[in-house]
Order: sequence, then structure tokens, then C-alpha cells
Amino acid sequence: MRIPLDRQNALPLYQQIERYLREQILSGQLAPETRLPASRQLAQELGVSRITVNNAYAQLESEGLLYSREGSGVYVLPRTPAPPVADAAGAIWPLWQQAIERDDPPYESRATPPRRIVAHPKPIAFTGVGDRREFPIKEFVRSIQDVVRRDGAAALAYGGLDQGYTPLRTTLTHVLGSQGIQAHPDHVLITSGSQQALALVCQVLLKPGDVVLVESPTYNLALELFRVLDLQIVGAPVDEQGMCVERLEPLLQRRHPRLIYTIPNFQNPTGSCLSGGRRRQLVALADRYNIPVLEDDFVGDLRYEGRVQPALKTLDPGGRVIYTGTFSKMLMPGLRVGFLVAEGPVFKRLVDMKRVSDLTTPTLMQRALEAYVNVGRYQAHVRRSGRLYRQRRDAMLAAIRRHLPAETEVIPPHGGLFIWLRLPEGLSCLDLLPLAAEAGVEYAPGTRFFPIPADGESYLRLNFATQPPAEIEEGIRRLASALHRLNRSVVAPAQKQHPSRR
Amino acid sequence: MRIPLDRQNALPLYQQIERYLREQILSGQLAPETRLPASRQLAQELGVSRITVNNAYAQLESEGLLYSREGSGVYVLPRTPAPPVADAAGAIWPLWQQAIERDDPPYESRATPPRRIVAHPKPIAFTGVGDRREFPIKEFVRSIQDVVRRDGAAALAYGGLDQGYTPLRTTLTHVLGSQGIQAHPDHVLITSGSQQALALVCQVLLKPGDVVLVESPTYNLALELFRVLDLQIVGAPVDEQGMCVERLEPLLQRRHPRLIYTIPNFQNPTGSCLSGGRRRQLVALADRYNIPVLEDDFVGDLRYEGRVQPALKTLDPGGRVIYTGTFSKMLMPGLRVGFLVAEGPVFKRLVDMKRVSDLTTPTLMQRALEAYVNVGRYQAHVRRSGRLYRQRRDAMLAAIRRHLPAETEVIPPHGGLFIWLRLPEGLSCLDLLPLAAEAGVEYAPGTRFFPIPADGESYLRLNFATQPPAEIEEGIRRLASALHRLNRSVVAPAQKQHPSRR
Repeated sequence: MRIPLDRQNALPLYQQIERYLREQILSGQLAPETRLPASRQLAQELGVSRITVNNAYAQLESEGLLYSREGSGVYVLPRTPAPPVADAAGAIWPLWQQAIERDDPPYESRATPPRRIVAHPKPIAFTGVGDRREFPIKEFVRSIQDVVRRDGAAALAYGGLDQGYTPLRTTLTHVLGSQGIQAHPDHVLITSGSQQALALVCQVLLKPGDVVLVESPTYNLALELFRVLDLQIVGAPVDEQGMCVERLEPLLQRRHPRLIYTIPNFQNPTGSCLSGGRRRQLVALADRYNIPVLEDDFVGDLRYEGRVQPALKTLDPGGRVIYTGTFSKMLMPGLRVGFLVAEGPVFKRLVDMKRVSDLTTPTLMQRALEAYVNVGRYQAHVRRSGRLYRQRRDAMLAAIRRHLPAETEVIPPHGGLFIWLRLPEGLSCLDLLPLAAEAGVEYAPGTRFFPIPADGESYLRLNFATQPPAEIEEGIRRLASALHRLNRSVVAPAQKQHPSRR
Repeated sequence: MRIPLDRQNALPLYQQIERYLREQILSGQLAPETRLPASRQLAQELGVSRITVNNAYAQLESEGLLYSREGSGVYVLPRTPAPPVADAAGAIWPLWQQAIERDDPPYESRATPPRRIVAHPKPIAFTGVGDRREFPIKEFVRSIQDVVRRDGAAALAYGGLDQGYTPLRTTLTHVLGSQGIQAHPDHVLITSGSQQALALVCQVLLKPGDVVLVESPTYNLALELFRVLDLQIVGAPVDEQGMCVERLEPLLQRRHPRLIYTIPNFQNPTGSCLSGGRRRQLVALADRYNIPVLEDDFVGDLRYEGRVQPALKTLDPGGRVIYTGTFSKMLMPGLRVGFLVAEGPVFKRLVDMKRVSDLTTPTLMQRALEAYVNVGRYQAHVRRSGRLYRQRRDAMLAAIRRHLPAETEVIPPHGGLFIWLRLPEGLSCLDLLPLAAEAGVEYAPGTRFFPIPADGESYLRLNFATQPPAEIEEGIRRLASALHRLNRSVVAPAQKQHPSRR
């Protein structure tokens, strides 16, 4: 029997023998009732001591893989469960796994269909959340070093309090206060990004089958969360003034949502901002119909013009609105530090759910962030980003006017990261996707953002913050050429077959 | 009207005025229908321009807080929803919040009852997971610096792949391979600590009311997770050889668990190690009864003596066992990087659930950990910790023999972090707790670890890894004196009232 041994390996030889035999037995290479070589013989073959072989045999025996017959030798024990072959090719899964496969939710079939794309050597991506080149990475690492020097091992111990690092919660209330949101540190929960805040709220308030009311379109990963949790998603339309709140009441009466999820500022993906009147109306409706509101303020501090609107949380008469925000979008997405603000019995439940979900958000990240914000670096970074992104928004709007067909519709956003673009009548963002990829430009197709994906076929979401102006100009030019190709291919057969595609 | 203005503040004056008035209106200090000063008058009082005041009034009007009466001035608008006072004293919560309060799960009342404790100036804690003084913090920060230097902004971008940073997954499979566990990087999911792995598995496989089978006692935060998710918890007894698997079948037949959760190595809290035979039997049972197994190997690499037992995952014929581990316990608990290994349809579901739960585990932590492990620092740290903790285990066992009454029962663990101690008949770990705190020693009371907390009244869990030998000696001495006090207080009245407490 040839067993490969590696004498340089830190693993002792008897364990190498054990492991090899174990694998052979478990994989079926060594069939049940096979007689193994006598230990003396195997020791000789392998050039090891007989004790080494005996050790390996004894261990495998204790595991129930081998057994000794008195005076006859050592044999492979027949295995109790018949071992089905489980590999990628013809895996036979246990029944509970097969049930999962059968239950696979239908939403995946609604996602973008796979298409063959010829990759461009240097694509320009209007996707993602920020420009890597602008991450304040050196400054942030300096904050990490400062914290480690100051706090020592505490910087990598558990966070201590369930709600998160107390000085960070206090600092956060100051940042929020400067945005007009009054919050007490005791009502702040630090989360692993605002995505976790969304997940915790759903896990605490909703059960499978419950209805959640959202803007249509809305943040794609919120939709994905709702789908994974088997919630029913009801969409309310969005215009330049945000969610059409005046059309909400019939939906509330007919569908009985258990949660309203909204992004009032520079909405993802439309960029629209909920008007002051609608804000008050929404809070009043939530109060009258006894529905919690989850307010996602993911880039509320990134306003380029216009007046600040009060957060729904500010209008909340008490315990109606759960507010969530994040540092990931403004600083570095890999940071994964967000927070929520809530009052009343639900807050304790959210803290409990957070603790059992992942104990705590990494302490080092919380402490470094607190240090970073507290010396004013965060505020300076937000101001710098605001100036930069505003220029980029203007560059993209100008490029769109210059290069894209006049029938392309765009509403200039007053802040945030996104331009929401409506294609000329009859063109699909999914048909455009492979052509754009070939031309070297990437965007998020509108279908991702709608409860009913097909509703988004006319739309693209462009992130203007990820590229400098020259790249924006070139990217939009590429988009124009892809659109031109699509238009020809659509119009030509359309003229033959039917006068209009819709 | 005196409005405090701060001319050094970055917030423009009109916004400071706005904010002040908004707070006054929302808090009810400015009652509905109150007439505000004319803008000219207020401007004069505050020493600002009239435009500044008009801007503030216009904004508050757009928010629906103020309204103008033609030729008469500006008034506070009556608010649509009657604002109930929501403060800590007499909060009136919306109905959905009141329902949460009513539904509060009963488990909280089962927790340790609050007792008045006189704090010791320098307590010795046999709690927590590791010794802060031994965290390899400098080396880990060096890894962070190396990674930032090498990867730049990518180190703080999103992790990219949903499953986690690919090189870390590959490195992990090498670490697991050296422990006899064969895993492919494609079947590894990086999680935010092993707690998240537990939560994801429950969220994917179980619904409220489902039964989960656990060792009794078991890891307290797993119990807490199961309770928060409204699962029914069924406990199987544990002895020196781990879970009493031969007593499982009647439980499987009567209670139909949907998940078996087990800690085979150096179990938390008992320190016992599941025997080889029981391991094979457990996997066979899980196969026969079609029940997924969650194997929590939280300190499997911390063995001080005895032979390595195969992981259940190694015995799994395919897709039956979900394996989870963590770096938090061995390195630094605040790291929050763990992982799970699974195959089959459930794996994709776990990846989806992870993505919607918090997108990704912080990239910087994943990359720094990969660098740390890959240069061999992790392995060296585990070896060093193993030597250190073994000495501390021996020190604690010796101190227990020296100082505690002979009727105290302890089974020396072969690895891990914990000694599980049974008090002499009739003594309660909860009664001991305040006396121990006064004497200056902390432990985890046994009640925390049992599905039915009262079952744990005779037990304490002592973590021997958190203190150096001298402190261990002193801590156990303090425990002995607390026990002595308790014994006197119990025996004295017991002799008067009833011959035995049980």
C-alpha cells in the first residue's frame, strides 16, 4: 500500500497515515471488509516505525472506521449510512436539501437573463457606490493606528455594550444633531452597515407572507432582502417629489402593509427627494394606520443644492419611525458600519436581534471611525466629496444632453449619487446591457429596482460619483454609441414587423 | 424671542434659526396658532439680516410647520397627528409597539435574577473568551498596514464576491486540511463571527416553532439566538464523552427536530469531547432521520492532549453537516471573522441570506486575517496559546483541588477554554454569584447554558484561559471563601428548617 508521506510537513506521520486511510475509506476506495496490511509490513513499506502505523490504526478504530478480528488482522468496517456520492456532477442530497432546491423562490428567474458579453479592455463603470480613488484610506488607517496606540487590546476585544461602542454612539448623535435630527445615544444601535439595520427591522417586525410597502423603484438589496425573507412587496409610485404619498391610502387599506420602507433623500435609484408636505403626510398616515416606518437615509448629508428637508424621524411624534444611516457610502463601502435610531419596545428587540445575529460590529472599526469623525476628518471628507460629486453630477448631466438622444429623460438630482435615466420609447435596458458592455460602459439596469422587474425595462441607474469628469464624458459617449446600435437593431425589424414595439 | 446663535458654527444662521424654531414647535414649546415675531423685528433682535429670518420662515412653511395669514403674519400650524408625549417616563407608543411589549418572550424572566452586589476593587474574571494581554494586536495591526500598502483602496472596498475574500477562503481550506477537514474554497462562506453562521443557518432552515436539538448544557448565545427566533429547544444530556448520542433516537422520534446543533470539541460549557463512535453514530442518525447537523468547532484547534477526533464534517457522506468555525476565539474576539462550510442547495441559500443580512464581512478584516494566517503568524499564535492555556488549565485544576471542597466535581478537559464545575449538593451558582463578586471573582453561572435554566443551578463555568497562573490561584482561593460563606448560610438555616435542601 503506497501512502504518500511528507516528512517536511508539520503534521506527524501517524496522522498523515490516518488521514490518507480515512479519506480512502470514506471515499469508498477502500471497500468495507478490505483487510489492511499488517502493521509490521506497512511500517516496512513506508519506512516508519511500527508504533506509528499502530497509532494510526488505533485512531481509525476508535473512529469506527476499522475493526480488528482476533488473530486475523485489521479490516475496514462496513459503514452504517449508505454513502451516496455527493459531487457537483451527480450529487444525491439528503431529502431536506432536496426540499430546499424545490422551494427555490421564483424571484431569481426574474433577474437579468444571462447574455453573452464581449468584454471591453477598459470599461467605465457607472456602478458601485463611490470612487475608490477618493477613499480617505490613509487617514482612516492613521485613525486605526491612533486607536490601537490609545486603547491597546481593548480595541480588538468585544465592543462591550450590545448597542455598540458608546463614544461612537455619542459622536453619531452630534453628527445627526447637525442635520436637525435629535437622537439620544441610548437609542442608537451600531449595525454592520445599514443593510443589517434593514435586515434586523424585518426580522423583528415581519414574518413570511407579510406585506412591506416600498417606493417603486427602490434600493435593489432591500428588495432582495424582502424576497429572501418571503415578504410580499407592494410598490408605490415615485415622482420628482419622491414617493407619491397622496396615492398611499388605498394601498394601506387594501394591502395592510406591516412596514413602510422609504428613502426620502436622493432616493436610490431615482435621486428624487421627498417634499416637506409629503413627509408630514407620510408620518400622519403611518400614525393613523398603525404602521412602522423604516427611513433609510443612506446619503442624506450629500446635498448639492436646495433646502434641507426634515427627516421623517424629526416629524415622528414618538416611536413611529426607525431611522437608519451608514458611513459606508460616504467613506469606504468595506467599512460596514451603519446605525439605526429607534425608541420604544421595538428598540430592545432590535438590540437583542443584533446580538444573536453577530454579537457586535467589529470593535476596531467602530473605534477607528469614532476617532476619524471626532477629529473632524469625516466632516471635511463629506464637504470635499460634496464639491467633487456635484461637479461630476453636472458633468454627467451635460454629457447626457450632449450625446444622448433628446427623447432620453433625466431629472437632475439635488444630491446623492445617482442619475435615473429613462430610455427613448421602446428601448430596453436589458437589450442595451451587452451592447454597452462591448462599448465599454457599465450601468445598473432599471429592472433590478422594481418589485416587478419588468416595470424597469426603460430605465438605467447611473452612478456619477464613481468617475472623474473626463471618464464621465467618455462613458456617456460610449453609452450613446451603444444606444445608437440598439436603436438601429430595434427600429429596423420593428419597421418590418410592427409599427411600434409597445 | 431669544434664539441662541453660534456665529462660529459651520451651520448657516438661517438654519440655526430654523432648527431652533422646529424644535420649539415639535416639542410643543411653541403652541399651535402662536404668532411668530415679524421677520423685521426678529432680524433686529438677533442682529441678522431680514432675508435670513425670511429664509428660515419659508423653510418651516414648506415643511408644514408654519403658515402665513394674509397681512397678519406667520403662525404655528396645528399638527395633524395628535402628538402623544413619548419619553422614558410616560411614553405612549403606537399600537404596533405596544403589541411588541405584550409579546415579550418569557425567557427573560428565566435569566439570572438581579441581586445587589458589592463591587470588589480588583475582581478576577474567569469569564470572557481569551486573555487580552495575549492578543497578537501588534502583529495584527502590522498585517493591516501590509494589506493597505499592498492593496490600496481595494482593502476598504466591498469584498467583491458574496462568499468572502477568495484568498482567505483558500487559506482557510489549508488550515482546515491540516486538521483533517477537506473543504473546497467554493463551499466556504466567510461570516461575521461564527455567531452569524449560527444565525444564518437558523434563518435559512427553521421557522418559528420549529424544534432544535442541542446538548444540554450548550453555548449560551446559541440558546439566546434560538429563543429570539422563537424556536423550541430540546436538550440531550452530555457526559465526559460529549452528547449522549445513544439516547437521541427517542427524542428524534418524539420531537421531530429540524436541526441538531452540536459542539463536538471541548464543548462550551462542559469542555467534553465527543467520542469517535458517537460521532459516527450521530452522523448516521442525522442521515436516517433526515436532519441537518450544525457542527460548531469553536476551539477545535486548541487541544492539549489526547487524539484528534474526526470532525463530523469529515464523516458526512455529503450535504448532511454544516461546519462552522471562527478566528475570534483564538485571536481577538473583536475581529468578528468566522466561516461556515456547507454543500448542496443549502449553501446557495446561506450565501443569499448572508448578502441580504449585511452584504459582506469587513474587507479589511478579511484581508488582514488572510495576510496574518498566510505568513504563519496564526499557526505560531495557536501553538503559543496552546502551551500557555494548557499551563493555565493545570494551574486551575490544581488550585481547585487545593482550595475547593472535595465534593466539588470537575472533569479535566483535554482542550479548549473551560472548566465545568459542579458545586457540592444543595448549593446554587446563583446564590454564590453575589458572594463571589464581593470576594472578587467572576464566573458564568450554569443556568445560562441550559435550555431549562434551573437545570444549571449546581454548575459554574470557569474560563481558565483569561488569567495567568498567579491570578488563577488567587481567584480560586476567593471562590473557595465565597463558597465557604455560602455553605455556612445554607447549612445553618437548613439544619433548622429541613434536613436537606433538595
